Amino acid sequence: MFVADGMADRPLKELGWKTPLEAARKPALNQIAKAGVCGIIDPISPGIPPGSDAATLAMLGYDPLKVYSGRGALEAIGSGVKVLPGDVAFRCNFATVNKNLVVLDRRAGRIENEDATKLAKSLQKIKLKKSSNVEFLFKNTVQHRAALVIRGPKLSTAVGDSDPEVAGKKVLEIKPLDKTPDARFTAKIVTELMHEFHEVLSEHPVNKDRAKRKLPEANMILCRGAGTIPKITPLPDVFGIKVACIAAVSLIRGVCKVAGMKLIDVRGATGTPQTDYMAKAKAAVQALKINDLVFLNVKATDVAGHDGNAKLKIEIIEKIDKMFGYILDNADLDSTYIAVTADHTTSTITRNHEGDPVPVAISGPYVRRDDVAEFGERTCAEGGLNRIRGTDLMHILMNLLGKNKKFGS
Amino acid sequence: MFVADGMADRPLKELGWKTPLEAARKPALNQIAKAGVCGIIDPISPGIPPGSDAATLAMLGYDPLKVYSGRGALEAIGSGVKVLPGDVAFRCNFATVNKNLVVLDRRAGRIENEDATKLAKSLQKIKLKKSSNVEFLFKNTVQHRAALVIRGPKLSTAVGDSDPEVAGKKVLEIKPLDKTPDARFTAKIVTELMHEFHEVLSEHPVNKDRAKRKLPEANMILCRGAGTIPKITPLPDVFGIKVACIAAVSLIRGVCKVAGMKLIDVRGATGTPQTDYMAKAKAAVQALKINDLVFLNVKATDVAGHDGNAKLKIEIIEKIDKMFGYILDNADLDSTYIAVTADHTTSTITRNHEGDPVPVAISGPYVRRDDVAEFGERTCAEGGLNRIRGTDLMHILMNLLGKNKKFGS
Repeated sequence: MFVADGMADRPLKELGWKTPLEAARKPALNQIAKAGVCGIIDPISPGIPPGSDAATLAMLGYDPLKVYSGRGALEAIGSGVKVLPGDVAFRCNFATVNKNLVVLDRRAGRIENEDATKLAKSLQKIKLKKSSNVEFLFKNTVQHRAALVIRGPKLSTAVGDSDPEVAGKKVLEIKPLDKTPDARFTAKIVTELMHEFHEVLSEHPVNKDRAKRKLPEANMILCRGAGTIPKITPLPDVFGIKVACIAAVSLIRGVCKVAGMKLIDVRGATGTPQTDYMAKAKAAVQALKINDLVFLNVKATDVAGHDGNAKLKIEIIEKIDKMFGYILDNADLDSTYIAVTADHTTSTITRNHEGDPVPVAISGPYVRRDDVAEFGERTCAEGGLNRIRGTDLMHILMNLLGKNKKFGS
Repeated sequence: MFVADGMADRPLKELGWKTPLEAARKPALNQIAKAGVCGIIDPISPGIPPGSDAATLAMLGYDPLKVYSGRGALEAIGSGVKVLPGDVAFRCNFATVNKNLVVLDRRAGRIENEDATKLAKSLQKIKLKKSSNVEFLFKNTVQHRAALVIRGPKLSTAVGDSDPEVAGKKVLEIKPLDKTPDARFTAKIVTELMHEFHEVLSEHPVNKDRAKRKLPEANMILCRGAGTIPKITPLPDVFGIKVACIAAVSLIRGVCKVAGMKLIDVRGATGTPQTDYMAKAKAAVQALKINDLVFLNVKATDVAGHDGNAKLKIEIIEKIDKMFGYILDNADLDSTYIAVTADHTTSTITRNHEGDPVPVAISGPYVRRDDVAEFGERTCAEGGLNRIRGTDLMHILMNLLGKNKKFGS
């Protein structure tokens, strides 16, 4: 199962009213569409813009409306931070703020991993008051992304975000979202931490150096998406399968880990447009030899969409296509099903996740091949799968693999 | 969002096996289909014939299976009768019965508003026994349609209808539908009222005059659809939008009012085939300037369907098309989405609501335009939206407007 983050889009005037996917040269993806059965997927439900975490849970067969419990814990798990039941975890950004705590850049110029790692190490040294009985873990992941986990006896996920979501607005005060003492306490703890983080970051040599290099200083941590571990049955237990994940982005790694997948580390896989696509393809072909399901994820398409860069999105899709060229040439196609889709639409115009459906193509032995000859948002809409839900995809694949149990007798 | 009541139909031999919509000349509707993305909608679910109230609730994004609480209250609210929580309201018809209470005409010859108003005023003068602690409000709306609201401490919606639904059958006794004392009491009160109404109507000068003019006497009130106000969150609170409704028929106005819309009164809009289509189009274009969503409804297509009049249905669809000609010429199409659909199929053969899906076309900036070139039941079935549910439509539109919240992060 291949999921390209935010690969689906809307038609663009600059592309002669094609989408980036439609405009891209993609012989391998087209071959999968041609050999397979196609359709469109509403990751959550029609019109609802999905987050990548909720959409990925759906594509793995879990109903996000029932099991989703916040991004923070998934991000943290995926970045290698151990999250225990009861822990509250946040998704964080290194950001740039001015003296009045107005956000200038939500991603601190997409700070490089090296700088972020140095800053994160200093933050982890901060000591919370012993009386609070709360510990924290802070870890940077890819670029500006990071995870914060707090652990203690009286914590709640019912707290708001400090991330105002757009530049130009002031950092938000973290507020309790219900009236429980735990929510109030958690909001207080996280607020304290944010202030401590800001102090340490503002004086940090890495930031002094960034200022000299005319780079945005990473002088604030924005946090959002308080969450705990979702309560789901891992895929090996649901379907009796061995599963592996190839994904660079912590959030997706977290979802996959919770879903019971082995995380495969690939050298050069970065979650950025510069990721080593071919290394991922090679790892996927290898992993298919010893797993029933390999989940392969590329983040870069979403990055290009959020940046409103249609040209880059097309280039990335063409690199993804080359990945599939390798996979088609090297996987055992007599016994392999390939499903290609996106987790959501990221509009290059609105630069946001949108609730438009995503295309899907499934090729492999004995699928009901249809007439779709090109992998795209609108061509796939004419395919034999028609319009399905995100949670359907895994069951359709498990059915092809003979791993679904009969209902009734 | 334009909804033509019962516009969808089945293929007719007299039209060379086209539906009235397929047979009609409709360049404007075709233009919307051509510029947009098309599909078919199951207003409730496949095969279920929807009432207009339930279908309209669905098209506005509310799951009628969860929120529908009877037609009566919606009809009453829409006709300007104040309905309070706890009130039980009925949808009523002026009808013609013989001495044995056999229904001869369920609509009393589609009695004109003028006669109905005079009759309704006399009915409102009837006094219920003080000991019952029940008050009632009776108001005629359009033609034979009327609303009855009963208010009191011990009422229930669990009562049957007096309307036998077809001519040739006797008026039904109103029965309690469960074993509660409130249901028994409500049935008794409404039965009393029906008899009092019949007495007053039978002797009324308006009916004596109708008899002279060889018109069916409106000598009975048939009531059905006992209901209360549905518990729904108004659209402005759900999506943060300003919404207005242009509809003549009380039932639809009631749904729209409960959904938080401003009701726009249009001179000449009657809910009949003779309605002023162009006045509605002009009002819609004006309303679009200050609202995020304008809901435009035409009843006439349903009237023609119930009368089994395919020729009239085609004429009405062609008038609707001229409405859209005006809208396309005068609305700001760079920033406006247009969704055209029907609330259900009304078969010109069965003369009833049917559970066949309805066509939909959505045009506007950046939609994934498909190959459908004609607005019709079968052409739209080949469109890029595939087959969706009634409740999906509003979410799809709100997604295009950027008003849907992301699920997950």
